[in-house]
Amino acid sequence: MCFGAHCSGHSTKKDTGSSHCWGPEGSGSRAPAPRGAPGGSPARAPRRSPYLSARGHVAHVLLGSAEEGYAAYHADKYDEESNPDGIINFGTSENKLCFDLMSKRVSQIAKRNMLRNSSLVFILREEVARFLTHYCKAPAPLKAENVIVLNGCGSLFSALATVLCDPGEAVLIATPFYGGITQSVFLYGNVKLVYAYLDSKITGTSTRPFQLTVDKLEKALQDAQAEGVTVRALILLNPQNPLGDIYSLSELQDYLEFAKRHELHVIVDEIYMLSVFDESATFHSVLGMDRLPDPQRTHVMWGISKDFAVSGIRFGTLYTENQDVANAVASLCYFHGVCGPVQHKVAQLLRDRDWINQVYLRANHARLKAAHTYVTDELKTLGVPFLNRNAGFFVWIDFRKYLRTGTFEEEMLLWRRFLDNKVLLSCGKAFECSEPGWFRIIFADKIHRLQLGE
Amino acid sequence: MCFGAHCSGHSTKKDTGSSHCWGPEGSGSRAPAPRGAPGGSPARAPRRSPYLSARGHVAHVLLGSAEEGYAAYHADKYDEESNPDGIINFGTSENKLCFDLMSKRVSQIAKRNMLRNSSLVFILREEVARFLTHYCKAPAPLKAENVIVLNGCGSLFSALATVLCDPGEAVLIATPFYGGITQSVFLYGNVKLVYAYLDSKITGTSTRPFQLTVDKLEKALQDAQAEGVTVRALILLNPQNPLGDIYSLSELQDYLEFAKRHELHVIVDEIYMLSVFDESATFHSVLGMDRLPDPQRTHVMWGISKDFAVSGIRFGTLYTENQDVANAVASLCYFHGVCGPVQHKVAQLLRDRDWINQVYLRANHARLKAAHTYVTDELKTLGVPFLNRNAGFFVWIDFRKYLRTGTFEEEMLLWRRFLDNKVLLSCGKAFECSEPGWFRIIFADKIHRLQLGE
Ligand SMILES: Cc1ncc(COP(=O)(O)O)c(C=O)c1O
Ligand SMILES: Cc1ncc(COP(=O)(O)O)c(C=O)c1O
Repeated sequence: MCFGAHCSGHSTKKDTGSSHCWGPEGSGSRAPAPRGAPGGSPARAPRRSPYLSARGHVAHVLLGSAEEGYAAYHADKYDEESNPDGIINFGTSENKLCFDLMSKRVSQIAKRNMLRNSSLVFILREEVARFLTHYCKAPAPLKAENVIVLNGCGSLFSALATVLCDPGEAVLIATPFYGGITQSVFLYGNVKLVYAYLDSKITGTSTRPFQLTVDKLEKALQDAQAEGVTVRALILLNPQNPLGDIYSLSELQDYLEFAKRHELHVIVDEIYMLSVFDESATFHSVLGMDRLPDPQRTHVMWGISKDFAVSGIRFGTLYTENQDVANAVASLCYFHGVCGPVQHKVAQLLRDRDWINQVYLRANHARLKAAHTYVTDELKTLGVPFLNRNAGFFVWIDFRKYLRTGTFEEEMLLWRRFLDNKVLLSCGKAFECSEPGWFRIIFADKIHRLQLGE
Repeated sequence: MCFGAHCSGHSTKKDTGSSHCWGPEGSGSRAPAPRGAPGGSPARAPRRSPYLSARGHVAHVLLGSAEEGYAAYHADKYDEESNPDGIINFGTSENKLCFDLMSKRVSQIAKRNMLRNSSLVFILREEVARFLTHYCKAPAPLKAENVIVLNGCGSLFSALATVLCDPGEAVLIATPFYGGITQSVFLYGNVKLVYAYLDSKITGTSTRPFQLTVDKLEKALQDAQAEGVTVRALILLNPQNPLGDIYSLSELQDYLEFAKRHELHVIVDEIYMLSVFDESATFHSVLGMDRLPDPQRTHVMWGISKDFAVSGIRFGTLYTENQDVANAVASLCYFHGVCGPVQHKVAQLLRDRDWINQVYLRANHARLKAAHTYVTDELKTLGVPFLNRNAGFFVWIDFRKYLRTGTFEEEMLLWRRFLDNKVLLSCGKAFECSEPGWFRIIFADKIHRLQLGE
């Protein structure tokens, strides 16, 4: 199977969320700062290259900075046979449980007749609209003309940030969150993130750890405005990465009403929507809501890299009723095209509802659930607290009791101790978590060994 | 054959260079201004969308504005059988003469075994280095580690502009030039172009029309600096689009020395390097020079859309010895990936030197030459002056005698008269030409009819 997408050959950003803390170091609405060594140690800014612009320097440093964990992993990859004592990667948010199903499927598709080029985009957008109508339980059929197709959700974040914000303006997001968004909105768009910090404390209004509430959004927005920062949009991740939370309908309604009150766009990233692996949990897409509070400012993205376990395929899609936004994003599409063969394969993939429901999703959810159960049972045995959720490929683990002091330096030391013990995890800092001691583990893998704890 | 790349499905930018003048309207170093109706009529700025940022508005308008010529063409496309009185497109810079050879070739490649994913990028970069070493006549083998691969030269312009310039800074380019560059450097990068205006006058130092001289570059640079504009780089197109010029070694040397004196980066776009169709002409790649004046500031791009007549395949490559620039561009690659199947096909395509030399280039050059001869003979018969060059798919035609007054309004009227007569050409304005009355015609097509003149 050859279905991957790679580019420069220098490196490809992935949700490694490991040592390497791509995002702003400091707090609040800072642009990504160049970093030295990963984690705790003070960021020694590397010399500014005489050949690059200021933003080119940021891009250079982001790539060039030591991705300690990832580099260590690549130098000493675990392999059942050839390197059984190597490092196991529990850092990259990839579903390895369904490679078998997907590679078979994709090669079957490849063998069928290709469609004519000119009609491909049209067909793909139709398929996406039909697919989203079904899986998002849309009250009325979604329209192909509101569908935009790009090479991945990363590109969609980049394009949306650019057309919704001017340089230096900001987008609101709750932490912890998938850190790749920081680069996606900053590298080209020069857009900053403003954080609503969530933490594990239970209070009257926060009845679960890291609960997103409108109060916290209001506060973050006010703080940013007080600092003179213009906030144009809110990003919601649903299901949430790294927490695994899925929002209830009334929560969603609250967040969207909050955004409407402040005339904020809402970018809803539902990239894990089909990775809800327990029937007890119900995912609600904003596209399934009877009435959107502010449809012209609501933009929904989804992609196949997570839900179809094919992170190599660069395909992301945006659904928006706003034709100005759609046109503006489309004019950036020239830089983010999806090649013909991928369009063809994705259209074929999304079309076959029977296979998706009866073969793929059944197997995928059963496997995810089994792996999740395995990991959480281990954690329970070890007496390590964690968030018990039903979506995504990850468990958000509370290792605070293993920190001597509650600092990010200590978190980094613990992270490194795991790495020394051949386990690559992602530390909370990589998700801009405000509370030191939280880690994300990816469980969507065959679990041969788990070296948890000390 | 399904080998195209399309994205949003809304529209894809192409070198249509027709009615639609993508670039800055005014003179000098202005950012792209929103335009109303194409051509002469004063640009009525469309209402600013309440949903978009200022730059999002520009992107929206660029896409949304009436591409009169292109729209007319799509509504009334010439077809030998079904629409023999339709519009013939002599506007899009596409080589239609070798579709037969390429589609056969590409489908043959598709049938061979795919390489393993992980090694694909590496192999592709090796192939590109070997290919460029050969066709650019490099004095020493070019290195794979200096090769970056992206989804097209448009994306390369976008990424390079971003990492070399900060917002509002500028890049120097001689007009007329391929207008798509304006958007590529502006939409994401917010980088302006500063123009060195060439014209048809013959003087002591300009011995051919539209000759690029260091004097003109010096003057444009000085003017920009006097206006407070920071210029970071020079773009050279060689072979030149739309002129068809190819630069001599000593000219190249002069331009590069000029850039070195002013510490300007040089972006050399050699995308038409294999489309030099007359043996009497010799193309010199800067990669073939014995010694580059400023190798750390010299960045060379090439792509396959023109030379291999496959404009649907999004593939462009950058060769630079500067590792800071390479890293910075690579960190933007996440947004501009080349999908696996395309990587595979391009690597296979570039590897087969025998087929390229003995089959493809022979046929391609013979066909280009025949088509060029046909068109230029017609022009001679009609008594219409033009630049007689040996590279590219286009002839730069002097229709000044058909303008009643030497204005761009008149140029637009003439352009529209051609369109009314079912001929879609590109007017000089679309290339920021400073002299009204010049038109570009694409000759790389089967020539069934030519309705030139009035
Ligand atoms: C929440 C979230 N959004 C977006 C992405 C990136 O998506 P893509 O692979 O389509 O660029 C990721 C990848 O980890 C993610 O976790
Ligand atoms: C001189 C020149 N450079 C670059 C391009 C765009 O190249 P690509 O198709 O690789 O984006 C064109 C297309 O017309 C061109 O004429």
